[in-house]
Parts: sequence; structure tokens; C-alpha cells
Amino acid sequence: MESQAGNDLRAFLEPESVAVIGSMREPQGEGYVMIQNMLRFGYSGRIYPISRSCDEVLGMRAYAALNEVDARVDLAVMVTPPPTVPGLVGQCADKGVRAVIIVSEGFAEAGQEGAGFQRQVVDIAHRAGIRVLGPNTQGVLNTDNGLVTGPYFCGSKRPLSGGVAYCSQTGFLTFASHPIIDRAYPISKVFEFGNKCDVHEADVLPYLTNDPKTRVIVMHLEEVKDGHRFIQVAQQAAVRKPVLILKPGRTEAAARAVASHTGSLAGDDQVWDTVFRQAGIIRISNWRDFWEVPRALALQPVPAGNRVAIVSATGGGGVLLVDAVTEAGLVPASFTSATLQELEALSPKLARNPVDTGPDMVLRDNPFSIYEDVMPPVLADPNVDCAIVVCHANPPVVDVFERLASRLSRIAKPVLLFGYGVDQAEMQESGRRLEALGFPTFFDMDIPVRALAVGAAYAKARLDLLERP
Amino acid sequence: MESQAGNDLRAFLEPESVAVIGSMREPQGEGYVMIQNMLRFGYSGRIYPISRSCDEVLGMRAYAALNEVDARVDLAVMVTPPPTVPGLVGQCADKGVRAVIIVSEGFAEAGQEGAGFQRQVVDIAHRAGIRVLGPNTQGVLNTDNGLVTGPYFCGSKRPLSGGVAYCSQTGFLTFASHPIIDRAYPISKVFEFGNKCDVHEADVLPYLTNDPKTRVIVMHLEEVKDGHRFIQVAQQAAVRKPVLILKPGRTEAAARAVASHTGSLAGDDQVWDTVFRQAGIIRISNWRDFWEVPRALALQPVPAGNRVAIVSATGGGGVLLVDAVTEAGLVPASFTSATLQELEALSPKLARNPVDTGPDMVLRDNPFSIYEDVMPPVLADPNVDCAIVVCHANPPVVDVFERLASRLSRIAKPVLLFGYGVDQAEMQESGRRLEALGFPTFFDMDIPVRALAVGAAYAKARLDLLERP
Repeated sequence: MESQAGNDLRAFLEPESVAVIGSMREPQGEGYVMIQNMLRFGYSGRIYPISRSCDEVLGMRAYAALNEVDARVDLAVMVTPPPTVPGLVGQCADKGVRAVIIVSEGFAEAGQEGAGFQRQVVDIAHRAGIRVLGPNTQGVLNTDNGLVTGPYFCGSKRPLSGGVAYCSQTGFLTFASHPIIDRAYPISKVFEFGNKCDVHEADVLPYLTNDPKTRVIVMHLEEVKDGHRFIQVAQQAAVRKPVLILKPGRTEAAARAVASHTGSLAGDDQVWDTVFRQAGIIRISNWRDFWEVPRALALQPVPAGNRVAIVSATGGGGVLLVDAVTEAGLVPASFTSATLQELEALSPKLARNPVDTGPDMVLRDNPFSIYEDVMPPVLADPNVDCAIVVCHANPPVVDVFERLASRLSRIAKPVLLFGYGVDQAEMQESGRRLEALGFPTFFDMDIPVRALAVGAAYAKARLDLLERP
Repeated sequence: MESQAGNDLRAFLEPESVAVIGSMREPQGEGYVMIQNMLRFGYSGRIYPISRSCDEVLGMRAYAALNEVDARVDLAVMVTPPPTVPGLVGQCADKGVRAVIIVSEGFAEAGQEGAGFQRQVVDIAHRAGIRVLGPNTQGVLNTDNGLVTGPYFCGSKRPLSGGVAYCSQTGFLTFASHPIIDRAYPISKVFEFGNKCDVHEADVLPYLTNDPKTRVIVMHLEEVKDGHRFIQVAQQAAVRKPVLILKPGRTEAAARAVASHTGSLAGDDQVWDTVFRQAGIIRISNWRDFWEVPRALALQPVPAGNRVAIVSATGGGGVLLVDAVTEAGLVPASFTSATLQELEALSPKLARNPVDTGPDMVLRDNPFSIYEDVMPPVLADPNVDCAIVVCHANPPVVDVFERLASRLSRIAKPVLLFGYGVDQAEMQESGRRLEALGFPTFFDMDIPVRALAVGAAYAKARLDLLERP
């Protein structure tokens, strides 16, 4: 059951047909909600509800058993009581299903009896050549085809398709617990690993490495199943795209909590730092960075270095950013004299970093037009690797960045925005429009800073990987 | 022009009448918008628009000059070109106005000429016993009477009245640049200091110390005008309520940026740490903490110590919190055996910290009722100083905490919520309802942790102050 360049995971994410086995009771049965989720997300394949108690589910014919489906089934998703699951996996073997997601809880994580069911599942699947994700997982999401296997409400329309693959060992870091649709996260795939009875991080990494939709991989891991293979596949991934890992257990207290949560030994945390460094992985440290940092990296190029231009409509904000940038291991860029002269020609107060656009803005008919004059020379400066812009998140700013987008993208350096304002709805709508133009927009000062720091660290780690003999 | 226990600042925040001097041009004249803001916020005093160019502004009689107002004027707010301002301050002296806010830019911060106007203002005001806030400021907000002196749109209704006084040296950290209304920040007063030609932080602190509405004071300062008096009044404040300070310039690069922004010398940052410690001030370090940490402290009691109970609907989230808590200098509490027995009696898996409510929730008709069973014994545990609850931010959770509110508030230890979910509108509405019940709710894991760490640090600093000879 070893991965072959991740190709055998295709059935989990790109199935042409899915059998859903679970309670079809309206309105809350887990199988029923799962199918409803797939319909809401517009899943493009065929769905086969499996149910002994009804003939029809959400307008689709239901089948009393898997073997009554007279067509190929690529993926079976089950959310039924643990004692039923080994038998159902056996039916999958008979039917020729190659991929199974076990959503149900109550296996190894729950005690001895559950662990027994889990062992039976693994035995049957192993003999039949079936790959299993879970148990105790909400499974997967693919924004490309609308496949989603969560058994609870996860939103009323398909999430935005984008470049981030989110993977985790807890449902708390999936589509089930975060407003990814409302906040327009750019997502390619989501994996929740669950108990990892078979499929785990080292299987998923090659799949995501080869997935053309995925530009950034982020993983939450409480432990790693196969350290040796993990380093190998993580290195192969990191050469091609950023791999970020959130691994709790940095403190002794948390390591103990990990042990009592998943039963896994977190191990000496410094060892993990070494492993991650060796693999070219960038470690992130908190819940917010898990969600926010990858989406910055997915929308913009990776910075070649750590020299940041700060362009701020507020002098006070620029100063705060200098502390944040410096403490994150980045440095405020020193502009070349050519750039300084160009800025000076616009207005003497602009000729420094942070570029304080405030005083000049109040003199303009359209205050926000200043970004059109300032951004191209600043970003093109050879001493600048990346930029953070502190600006209003409002429609006139969106218009300016719409005009700037192609000029800036030709320079191929990341530009992140920290948007502010008094009207939250206007800010959020403007943020969505700016992100549609390719400019990641945050209503927070530290996130864009950390995103650039992570990006710069990745650029360095990738160079190190490429230069190794 | 020295402060007497801050009483002489009353005219700035609690005036019964305000003269507004500035452009009354519709729809964007600064004086016009300022009056519009006051009307939208329901300012309860009298407003006298001063304008040579019109007879009526927003339904109110306008006066060609201040001396035509045939009633007392407590506060004059001016947003007119710098050369006109010294003369207008002179008219205030003639009229007997005791408090002036100069909103206009273009004074000392802009260059030599502006600095000259600013000196003239100070001379005139000093001779007449007038206190001046600014120039180069958006002034003040008082949520109690609806007074607001910002010259740009700052929202369509009065912000929520609450316990936080926000003070800053930049408009970027005021009502002008943050969605305080949409996010329901509990605010007592806002001060922007501007150029501090007269009124500064050491004047404002005594006023806020004595302000019964203010439970927490937070200040952004790029420099301190009068270090000696500042330490004295800050100590007096810190004995009575938390004083948090965001002071940039922690890094050399930022200290240089401060110098070029406000012309002030930031000084050796370690000296500031010592000064703040001596004064019982808690230092915060970033933009987000400035906005978010005080509102947690305003709604809940200060923790007596640093031992945290974590109650989490997600095992994975609980583990992440243990790292966050520990790295913030807090410790996961060790429950007493009595508490452990009580939790064990509910369900064996609950008897540890973090309390993982997940497995037990799925067995209940109302999963969220678990908080009613778990929270009272956990919070009452003598080994527990405070709690963070990781829970859905949804209506059933609000209902549970509504039933719990009075029981928990009797225990008098802070309880902060980290709310999650998939529907942002539902989360925000639930968060507002939970905060109305007194439970600060964050959609972020690190903020409640930092809020408790700041609270615990304040409790210790206050004890130190009280124990000093």
C-alpha cells in the first residue's frame, strides 16, 4: 500500500463516482448532509446513496447495498457505526472500489474495541489493495470538481478555487470549522488525515506536489507516520512549491497534550526542527498563520530575499510595520539613489522607506493615485525583494490597483496589502476584489509580515535544497 | 497649563456646547462632515457651526464668527488652514472658550512655517489659560454623549459604550481607521494626541483614571512628553485599572523611523521597558493587540494569576492552545482531585486539562449543554485563575452561555471564548450576543491567550505597586 508518486490518491480527489454510505435521514443524517454538501458544491461526478431505509435521497435513486450499483464506483465514503465498517470495506473489495474514506468516529482514537475494528479494516483493505483515508476524518474537499465528504453543513456554495492545499490532523483545521467560503480562501484541495490507518502525510505530499492546481502546501501534523519517507517526499515537494507545517508540541505541556489527544509521541521538538529544516519545510507556529500565510503565498511570487519596501498612507502605521518587519527577520529595504531621486521628484517626503504617502495624498484630486506613481519604481528597485502597502480598503484603491496590476506583476515580486477603514463590509468587499486582482489583502498588520518572512525563508530553503550535492 | 487631576480635560470630552470652525461645503467640507458625524453619533450638546459662507448647516444656524454666538461655548474645534488658526485661538480667548482642538494639519509636523504657527497658538493659549489638543489630530470621541471631532466619515451610528479608552499618537489607531462600530468595540473615550503642543498623555491619564466609564486604558505613544510626570500619573492610573502601552521603536530601524515621522527621539528601548515596569504599565507589541486585548480586559475581571483552564470542543484545538498558552508565559492549570472527580463522573475523557468536550458532545441531544456541566466546576477550581473556551460561535452556544452567565460571573474569574464556525455572519452575530452577555469572543486563538497573559501581568504589576513602600 505504498504511494506511487501519489497517483493512487486520484480516486480520493478526482473520482468520477462516489458511493455514500450513512444515515440518509432528513435533515441531519450524516450521509444525507454529505450528499447535500456535494450538491451545494456542485460535485461533477455521479453520486450513489447507499441506504436500506429509503429508495430516494435528494432526488437520486438510493441503493440498498453497494453491489446493487450497476456501474463503477471510484470512491466509497462511509459514516456508519464502527462495527459495520469492516464488512462495508469487504463489500468495497468485492465491488472493486479502490478508495475508501471512513468518516465515522469510534475507532482507535476511542479505545480498545474501536482499535480492533480499525485493525480489521486495515487487514481487509490491505488484502484487496484498497487505500483508506481515516477513520475519524471529515475527509476531503476538491474545489475543482466540488467533491466534499464532510457530514455536517459546510457552506452553501463551492469554495473559491485557488492555490492552497490545506491538510490537517484535526477537523478543526478544515472546511468544517472555518468560514473559507465567506472569506474567499483560494483553495485547491483539503485533506483531513484522521487516524491515518493507511493514507497519511507522506502519501498526500507526492499527490499535491504533482497537482497543478496546488501552489502552496500547508499541513497540521501532531505526528509523522514514517519519518524517513516523509523527509524524502517533503524535499521533493519543497523543491517545487512551499511546504508549511504547523506542528504543535513545541512546549513540553503541549507534547503531553498531543500524547493524550492522538496517543502519539510528539518527540523532542528540536529533532522536528532539524527534520523540517533538512526537508526544506518552513515551520509555522499558530492557528492564524495556518489559515492566512499560505493564501498570501498562493497569490503572489515568492520573494527572492528579505528586503521589504513599506508604502504606507499613515506615518504611524509605517513605523509600527518597521518593528514588525524587523522582529520577523526581514529588513526594511534601503532604496537605491535612483529610486530616491524618482520619489523625491514626486515629493520630498516620499524619498525614504517607509514611504509615507499621507502628506502627498491630501494634495491630490484622487489621493489614491499616489500608488500608481510610487509602487512601480519602489517595487522595481534592485534593493527591494517585496512590498507591503498600508492603504484604505475601499473602491478607489481597488480601481488604482486594477490599473497597476499588470505593471506590478511584470516586476514579479510579492506585494501584500494591509487594508484599513471604518466600514467592515466595504473593506471585505474591497479585499475580495483586490485578491481577485492577485493582491492578498489583510486586515491585520502582522500576517502580511509573517507571510513575507515565511516566503523569504522558503526561498532560502529551496536554494539550499537545490545546491545540495 | 498643568493638569489638576485631569479635571480640566472635561471640556474636551463633556462639553455642553461645541463650536465647529471649518469648511461647511457639502458634502465633504471638514467642518460639515464633523457636524454630520456628531449628528449621526447623537451628540447631546449644542453645536455652533462657524462659517462666513453660509447661514445654515445641516438644519442649524451658522454664525459668521465665534463672537456672534450668544451663549457659552465649552469647546472649539477648528479645521482651517494653519495661518488662520492663531487668530481663531485668539477669538476663543475673547469668547472665554477654555478648550480647543486643532484638527488641521500643516503645523510643526510639516516644517518651519507650520512650527511658527504652532508656537503662536501655544503662546496665545497659554496666556489665556486655554488648553489645546493637537494640532494634526482627529481629536476625541466620547461614546457617552456622542461627541466626535473627526473630519471624515466615521460611521453612521454611535459606537457601543464600554470600558476601553483608546489613545494614540496617530489617526491610524483611532475611530477614523478601524471598524469599531461594525465590530462592536466597547469604548469609553478616544483621544488622538496629534502634535501634543499642549495636552499630552500625562494630562489624559488622570482624566481617564477618574473616568468611571473607563476600565482599561490603552495608549499608542511614539514618545513621552514629560517622563517624570508620566511615570507618576501612570502609576496612579495602574493602581486602579490596567494601562497598556504600544510603543514602537523596539528595533533600531523603527526608532529611526519614529524620528523621521514625528521628529521625536525614541530613546534606548530598554530604558522604556524599565520606565513602563516602574509605572506598572503593561507593554503590548502590535497593532492587533492594541485593538483586541483591551476589550477582553474591559468585559471580564483581571485574572489573579497565570493558571489557565482550557475547555475545547476540539482536541486538536486544545493541543494548539497549550503551546500558545505556554509560550505566552501562562501555564495550563492542574485541576484539583475534586474537580477531576467531578469531570470524571460526567465522562472519563473530560478529566484533564485541556478538557476535550468533543467526544461527550456527540452523545448529547444538545451537544452544547456540556458547557453548563463543565464550566462551573472548572472555573471554581482553586488551581484555576482563568479559562479559554474553544466553541462554536452559534446560537445554541449563545443560549448556553446566557444560562451560565450569572453562575460564572459569581466566580469572578475571566472566561474568554475562541469561537469558530463556517458561517461568518452567524459567527459575528453570535459573538456580539456573547459579548453582550459579558464573554469576550474572538475568532482567533492567540488574542484571548495574549489578553489573559496581559491581564495576569497587570495583576502582578498592580500587586507590586501596592506593596511598594
